[in-house]
Amino acid sequence: MPGKIMLPIALVAATVATTQAAARAADPADVIEYRQAVFQVTKNNFGPIADMLKGEIDYDQATVEKNAAVVQMMSTLVGDLFPEGTDATPDETDALMDIWDEPDAFADAVAEFEETSVALARASESGDKRQLAAAVKDVGASCKACHDDFRRDD
Amino acid sequence: MPGKIMLPIALVAATVATTQAAARAADPADVIEYRQAVFQVTKNNFGPIADMLKGEIDYDQATVEKNAAVVQMMSTLVGDLFPEGTDATPDETDALMDIWDEPDAFADAVAEFEETSVALARASESGDKRQLAAAVKDVGASCKACHDDFRRDD
Repeated sequence: MPGKIMLPIALVAATVATTQAAARAADPADVIEYRQAVFQVTKNNFGPIADMLKGEIDYDQATVEKNAAVVQMMSTLVGDLFPEGTDATPDETDALMDIWDEPDAFADAVAEFEETSVALARASESGDKRQLAAAVKDVGASCKACHDDFRRDD
Repeated sequence: MPGKIMLPIALVAATVATTQAAARAADPADVIEYRQAVFQVTKNNFGPIADMLKGEIDYDQATVEKNAAVVQMMSTLVGDLFPEGTDATPDETDALMDIWDEPDAFADAVAEFEETSVALARASESGDKRQLAAAVKDVGASCKACHDDFRRDD
């Protein structure tokens, strides 16, 4: 298919070293700003898919596919966004210390977001709204579970 | 190749209607927050590639490819991020009115970012540092040109 590139999914986060992101944005405030941006982009792309399924906005297949691809890509970035030392500015972040105190549990939560996002990207391409709705539900559940455990309540 | 999905490049922005993004984030402040997030993510992924070429951080092929893919995807979002009415909060945005006063020129600038980002993604996959350096220079020039014309000076 012309005009396409292959982007790896699922394994991306596991294969990319965290050191580069940390090297680039060593200032905790910069890392926090960047990770909040990643979640903003995630929210702004996930939200419309959910809204379309709820009928709040018109369903648009191309938008669903594109937005799901963005969410999937953002999910692969999250694992690098909480280096040690980026918990130190509570006024600027809702990240709970459990992220660093329970790194295995947090890694599992991030992996769940990555995996459900891969399923979302695949479902978006299927054009099957039932499959898409299930995938959206799973991504939403992974967001909520991680926020419940690792994010300060609003 | 297992575990991969196809993502369209270059034509994505042209084929996706702007209406969904606008419907989702009709509040100008929300749109501004989202677009600033897109540029944050862009900067944080483009920057390390440039830094690697300058030798400021170690070159890592997987990171270059991943970051370039993120920049390329972000570039496809930009065209939807400046709907009418999102110029009204000068304290929150550096966007100049020329964006809306000269929509054709702005669209050209966005297209230049998209096109140079496609070249960056391709160059990143080539592993050819000369090609990569040329692509980075072109993307950087497209950033600068658009900022010069359409963004308030810092």
